[in-house]
Amino acid sequence: MYSLMNDYSEGAHPRILQAMLDTNLEQTAGYGQDPFCQEAADLLRARIGRSEVDIHFIPGGTQTNMIAISAFLRPHEAAVSAVTGHIELHEAGAIEATGHKVVTAPGKEGKLRPEDVQAVVDFHLDEHMVKPRLVYISNATELGSIYTKQELSALSRFCREHNLLLYMDGARLGSALTAPGNDLTLADLADLTDAFYVGGTKNGALIGEALVICSDQLKEDFRFHIKQKGALLAKGRLLGLQFRELFRDDLFFQLADHANRLAAKIQEALRALGCRFLLDSPTNQIFPVFPNWLIAELQKDYAFLIWQKVDADHSVVRLVTSWATPEEVAERFVARCAELLRNH
Amino acid sequence: MYSLMNDYSEGAHPRILQAMLDTNLEQTAGYGQDPFCQEAADLLRARIGRSEVDIHFIPGGTQTNMIAISAFLRPHEAAVSAVTGHIELHEAGAIEATGHKVVTAPGKEGKLRPEDVQAVVDFHLDEHMVKPRLVYISNATELGSIYTKQELSALSRFCREHNLLLYMDGARLGSALTAPGNDLTLADLADLTDAFYVGGTKNGALIGEALVICSDQLKEDFRFHIKQKGALLAKGRLLGLQFRELFRDDLFFQLADHANRLAAKIQEALRALGCRFLLDSPTNQIFPVFPNWLIAELQKDYAFLIWQKVDADHSVVRLVTSWATPEEVAERFVARCAELLRNH
Amino acid sequence: MYSLMNDYSEGAHPRILQAMLDTNLEQTAGYGQDPFCQEAADLLRARIGRSEVDIHFIPGGTQTNMIAISAFLRPHEAAVSAVTGHIELHEAGAIEATGHKVVTAPGKEGKLRPEDVQAVVDFHLDEHMVKPRLVYISNATELGSIYTKQELSALSRFCREHNLLLYMDGARLGSALTAPGNDLTLADLADLTDAFYVGGTKNGALIGEALVICSDQLKEDFRFHIKQKGALLAKGRLLGLQFRELFRDDLFFQLADHANRLAAKIQEALRALGCRFLLDSPTNQIFPVFPNWLIAELQKDYAFLIWQKVDADHSVVRLVTSWATPEEVAERFVARCAELLRNH
Amino acid sequence: MYSLMNDYSEGAHPRILQAMLDTNLEQTAGYGQDPFCQEAADLLRARIGRSEVDIHFIPGGTQTNMIAISAFLRPHEAAVSAVTGHIELHEAGAIEATGHKVVTAPGKEGKLRPEDVQAVVDFHLDEHMVKPRLVYISNATELGSIYTKQELSALSRFCREHNLLLYMDGARLGSALTAPGNDLTLADLADLTDAFYVGGTKNGALIGEALVICSDQLKEDFRFHIKQKGALLAKGRLLGLQFRELFRDDLFFQLADHANRLAAKIQEALRALGCRFLLDSPTNQIFPVFPNWLIAELQKDYAFLIWQKVDADHSVVRLVTSWATPEEVAERFVARCAELLRNH
Repeated sequence: MYSLMNDYSEGAHPRILQAMLDTNLEQTAGYGQDPFCQEAADLLRARIGRSEVDIHFIPGGTQTNMIAISAFLRPHEAAVSAVTGHIELHEAGAIEATGHKVVTAPGKEGKLRPEDVQAVVDFHLDEHMVKPRLVYISNATELGSIYTKQELSALSRFCREHNLLLYMDGARLGSALTAPGNDLTLADLADLTDAFYVGGTKNGALIGEALVICSDQLKEDFRFHIKQKGALLAKGRLLGLQFRELFRDDLFFQLADHANRLAAKIQEALRALGCRFLLDSPTNQIFPVFPNWLIAELQKDYAFLIWQKVDADHSVVRLVTSWATPEEVAERFVARCAELLRNH
Repeated sequence: MYSLMNDYSEGAHPRILQAMLDTNLEQTAGYGQDPFCQEAADLLRARIGRSEVDIHFIPGGTQTNMIAISAFLRPHEAAVSAVTGHIELHEAGAIEATGHKVVTAPGKEGKLRPEDVQAVVDFHLDEHMVKPRLVYISNATELGSIYTKQELSALSRFCREHNLLLYMDGARLGSALTAPGNDLTLADLADLTDAFYVGGTKNGALIGEALVICSDQLKEDFRFHIKQKGALLAKGRLLGLQFRELFRDDLFFQLADHANRLAAKIQEALRALGCRFLLDSPTNQIFPVFPNWLIAELQKDYAFLIWQKVDADHSVVRLVTSWATPEEVAERFVARCAELLRNH
Repeated sequence: MYSLMNDYSEGAHPRILQAMLDTNLEQTAGYGQDPFCQEAADLLRARIGRSEVDIHFIPGGTQTNMIAISAFLRPHEAAVSAVTGHIELHEAGAIEATGHKVVTAPGKEGKLRPEDVQAVVDFHLDEHMVKPRLVYISNATELGSIYTKQELSALSRFCREHNLLLYMDGARLGSALTAPGNDLTLADLADLTDAFYVGGTKNGALIGEALVICSDQLKEDFRFHIKQKGALLAKGRLLGLQFRELFRDDLFFQLADHANRLAAKIQEALRALGCRFLLDSPTNQIFPVFPNWLIAELQKDYAFLIWQKVDADHSVVRLVTSWATPEEVAERFVARCAELLRNH
Repeated sequence: MYSLMNDYSEGAHPRILQAMLDTNLEQTAGYGQDPFCQEAADLLRARIGRSEVDIHFIPGGTQTNMIAISAFLRPHEAAVSAVTGHIELHEAGAIEATGHKVVTAPGKEGKLRPEDVQAVVDFHLDEHMVKPRLVYISNATELGSIYTKQELSALSRFCREHNLLLYMDGARLGSALTAPGNDLTLADLADLTDAFYVGGTKNGALIGEALVICSDQLKEDFRFHIKQKGALLAKGRLLGLQFRELFRDDLFFQLADHANRLAAKIQEALRALGCRFLLDSPTNQIFPVFPNWLIAELQKDYAFLIWQKVDADHSVVRLVTSWATPEEVAERFVARCAELLRNH
């Protein structure tokens, strides 16, 4: 049984474990004020090419979203999300638990466009409704799609014209930035968003997301918010060390590229077999439409998520590759699909 | 420079790192539903001797407190804490951020007694005030002291008679249970409290606390609360793996015992040198009263916390030993104190 | 200029003011523990025919919703509302500000049916999502429609089978219960819901809603929640006095009936003039589709809300009558419409 | 039986009821956007002598405190209150329910001095603790004492030097400003505080407090916060109308002065009888120390609060006069005390 269920089924990239072994007994300050966090932040700032951004390492993605959004908003302000957004669907009401409504727009293939946000803004007229203030997007999205530079620039411009903050969830940012068709850089993100995060957990780290705060107005006292939400790890070194390892060379990007490449390989092979897809994803999550009998057969050897029903006989499934997926798993999987389809 | 600042200055106990290496590429389910968490929970339940308790692994201590307390209380209910309690002083208002007041009682040497809680209960008369509902205690306390079985039994009885929940913060529970004078067992805690946690971070783990929910009424839907507060790690295996290692034999207790023993060694040596203490602590945090000149001299080689001012010339300092503190550090430290005092 | 904007444009029914004058200098206990509140609650309980329900008087509707819902739910639980629900659209995120997500279902004409709620329940699978726990409905709805006994019974049965609480917003309950076609009684509401409120503000009172808690499990400590949310008026007598006056005879129902009757009169007359409606409303809010030129003409003499655009030339408007609307206003309004349409 | 329990035992001053009668059927806009609120705000601004302050009418005091404080603070920021402060003791955790800790200082006779706040500021060192940001004071205090201009100026200066907001709870502001020894004006309050409120409920109104926001930075979007906390009354006219009546001449001050005068009369008479007091209060709450037998005798004819125990035989009681207390009640009360003491 091999799992294509998600990109966090294994531990950490071996280089990360090695770094932990190498530094294990060094004494450091707690709560993220250790030299590893410092060094990792410096490496990341250099990579972004913006020395003035603030960087905070936070254990998880839901946590990062809820800390950032609750820190950035006043009580009556709301976050705008695509209906498929992680904060809307898969965070157990974490944003609302901090007091803020999540307002949704349909979006397109998991992405928000200026017209989506415009409709939300137009709908919210006065103090009887919440005030939309922060636009939440994911890159890659929950559907595997990515923002182009043109799309993100348009959205960013719209947000600035309408006094809206733009926040990017980067749980799978590595995949987005190494995807075919991507033309965004970390520097672009720093220019175009008010804050974004660089996801570690889904790209080879044990835990850890690096929140990058670009707008000066959002920086003040941020560590208080991390602490108050229970995310200031005593051994914050664990976060710094991992990001140091991921960014002291191109490891972060190599791992994401590996995952993307295997997903593309599967996607292309399945397409050659006549398979349709929910959408065309250039990243490590792909969404083929499978006949139910094929799903049942594949489930004997592979674990994956059934995403949604299409009709009585077909369903969309989600296949996820990761930094740890062996090349031969991808090959074996498509070979098995081909074999099953051929013999049906 | 050696740090006696706290018990989380290093990484993890080597056996924990080894377990991570050994299992790194095994694929597991996410979010704490992996076999390591299952196994760790079983080991811990066996150790507690109560098969019916629920066990959840949560990354940090503040997080565990805020998740448990906000899950256990209704909006108008308050937690009662000693004035020295961690939730009152050192969690950046995390409990209040979930909507609950922390009501304080003076307590004694960091501990709450029935009479402390009685006074709080008596003071809260009606719906114009919050309703005290949960008694928060720490063992070991923030001052290093521990609860005896008699003390905890009396408090537990009081709580049950007054419809109060009793919750124990066990960030340093290992130290408490291995301290000289301790007569409590994990089984006692399960009998006497409604919930408690077994601290990993301060006893050899990288991150991780094991929350033990003893009362059936508090168990329902608890994973929702963990998720909503951002504490359901995608790679929850990291928590399970560590607790499996700590509890598959006596490692957890050995590490705590080591820390206690070194603290006692320092405490006894300092006492022999005529040193007074803020209180008599049997655990790994000790609080000697030092003349300020001695503090200044020691700070050249050792990092530690200045706890409070005593008079113009003296201060209380906090010295913390850990599973990682070498025997010779303790010896060198007391030798240096002796030398400095002798030559003054 | 006459306003058909809403049903709270005037002060209070004269009998209420008279009761205030008559009792003004009587000294009473504060915070709703006065004899007027007691008497009003007894009258209301008698009218409901259920001696065991708890009744609390609360100044406003948004306040009542937020106090009740936050008191009834645990942190991870969500309220289910029609997309047109007041808590979803017109309470500025009040429910979310207490920490709870509002999950929506499309509903039909402002009403929720078992199948709407079933879809929400089916969609929420595990602890990565909120747990739907309370079904919020309004009667009359925000679109003026009402629940029949059959509809409410079906929804109630569904809720009980699925461990969901059923809560009814009764801001315009008077209108609902006196509407043509209504077959529900206050006693039915007590049987079929877990809690509901009887709206005073929109039916002749200055302020005040009477929350009726039917389920025993929801009653405990409720006054704490009222106080904590700032709704326990020092001069709570003001609330009790008004409800005493409304329920010491049939005044409450007479006022609602008056409003309904005038709305029906306008609706029938407009229909006779060929006017279409957004929906067929039997209560005091009606939603005709008007050509924009007619709207512009009418606005010279009447204030009302433009509800939504239909096409380039037509819009839905909302006309609201109240206990205070004079018969001749309704007559003049339809005459004016007839005249304008005739001369166009 | 006459109640000296509080200053909200009766309805409203007759002129207020008359104004309600006179305007009852005038149609106005809802939610505080009516001409009465406008006029009342203008009158109050003129009285304050600061045209640029924002004024909002809010039904109750706890509500005003919780809306203002939660609107003014970011999540990690705390309010500083005297231990006797209303937000600390008598609001059922309303501030904490909005997510903010209330940090206390002992204060003196219910008042905070710069040194009290300095100690709080000094104690809060870093992000492991909340950040004190708003200083909450009451005038008159919960003990009846008042701030002099010198005291308030010193506190205001301290707050500005330390980037702290200064907020004054004016539930009994009328009593404070008309008390013997008072040298503060409404204009001073606008100069020295960031926001304060003018209490109506305890000075002749049915409900209603007028929040005055002086600092520009605190003004934005404030109506959203009122709405979100359920305090935007549909018939907001009820609030405006009452404040119009209280401030269209000196009624507000006359009512407070009456209450103060009667309290002073009782206080002086009791002092002449040898009675001691908890403190010397110049306002409408006084705190004599009575022997318990006297309390028991008086309770046959008068209702009042037993404030605290002094010793086995004595207790402090609280006597409160109001705009509605007849002169002869005060006379009869002291005569009865004199008689009882004489005959003992």
